[in-house]
Amino acid sequence: MDEKLIKDINFIVEIDKMKSIYRRTEVINEKKREDDAQHSWHIAIMAMVLHEYCDEEIDLLKTIKMLLIHDLVEIYAGDTFCYDKIANGDKKDREKIAAEKIFGLLEEDKGEEFKALWEEFEAMETPEARFSASMDRLQPMLNNYNNGGGTWKEYSVPKEDIYKRIEPVKYSSKKLWEFVLYMLEDAQKKGYIIKD
Amino acid sequence: MDEKLIKDINFIVEIDKMKSIYRRTEVINEKKREDDAQHSWHIAIMAMVLHEYCDEEIDLLKTIKMLLIHDLVEIYAGDTFCYDKIANGDKKDREKIAAEKIFGLLEEDKGEEFKALWEEFEAMETPEARFSASMDRLQPMLNNYNNGGGTWKEYSVPKEDIYKRIEPVKYSSKKLWEFVLYMLEDAQKKGYIIKD
Repeated sequence: MDEKLIKDINFIVEIDKMKSIYRRTEVINEKKREDDAQHSWHIAIMAMVLHEYCDEEIDLLKTIKMLLIHDLVEIYAGDTFCYDKIANGDKKDREKIAAEKIFGLLEEDKGEEFKALWEEFEAMETPEARFSASMDRLQPMLNNYNNGGGTWKEYSVPKEDIYKRIEPVKYSSKKLWEFVLYMLEDAQKKGYIIKD
Repeated sequence: MDEKLIKDINFIVEIDKMKSIYRRTEVINEKKREDDAQHSWHIAIMAMVLHEYCDEEIDLLKTIKMLLIHDLVEIYAGDTFCYDKIANGDKKDREKIAAEKIFGLLEEDKGEEFKALWEEFEAMETPEARFSASMDRLQPMLNNYNNGGGTWKEYSVPKEDIYKRIEPVKYSSKKLWEFVLYMLEDAQKKGYIIKD
């Protein structure tokens, strides 16, 4: 059997673990937390649906690839709750080690391509990375909004932290940013965001 | 608010239901069934990793789009176990109605594009659809193999039904087909496939 193919298959088997890495956000109207595989699928489709509103020209294939793999490091580094300031302190270091491990399972060229996509996503400096960050941050907010507040309410997340978290949208799509502001204002009116 | 964007957002919220459409296949080493969102994510990454082994030239973006949306009809039509011959009798009709409903949530152009991708996947006549079918069928087999037999064993699936199910790989990638034959032979040796 081809050694490279065996590496690829082992990688595919290993990433099955994403289906058991739980995030804080809950599935809409289900009392269960979503996992990294579900989240990654959701934001990849969101890119398919929403890329037309992006103000910058983006390579959609590259964007979707980025979104599909951006959380793979969590197989070893775990999910870090975005509003947990202490856990976020050493997140970068933990994820860097995890990236070497997960992408290192693949043969060199493919491993390098995937790692570069992850690094580009993290740096948030290209149009594709900015749009990907927008999808990654908008999705849990849509779920929170449709769950009557979700983690915003459960963890009393301050309003300013929510606005800071969703800010990448502002630099990627005027139209989506307009929608975000409308949704967050409505969420406040409805008492979904409780801490000023 | 832009009417078209509202339609897009409603679609994105609706497809969250994929996270609760359970398939028969189990997550590797976890006593839980996987859902449609997890499965769709897994096969989209598989396409990223394995497309180099495809014997035909394929458009990777189109292939990944197809894989991400191919099971959306199950939100209304439910998951049909691939080895259940009775339930598969009216599957096509149930899914056609479901396709009108789910893709009909989107504005006309986008809805038509998504529906056409789903129809192309179902017809299995283009290189992209053949390769997509290969990913769709290989993934649960990898899980079964790594779960000591999984649904093959649980439902005593006859060997010939398994070989018939995985056949699209043969027409899409010689290299992957070689791997499939090797894996299935080994599965038989290990007693994972029990019915001749």
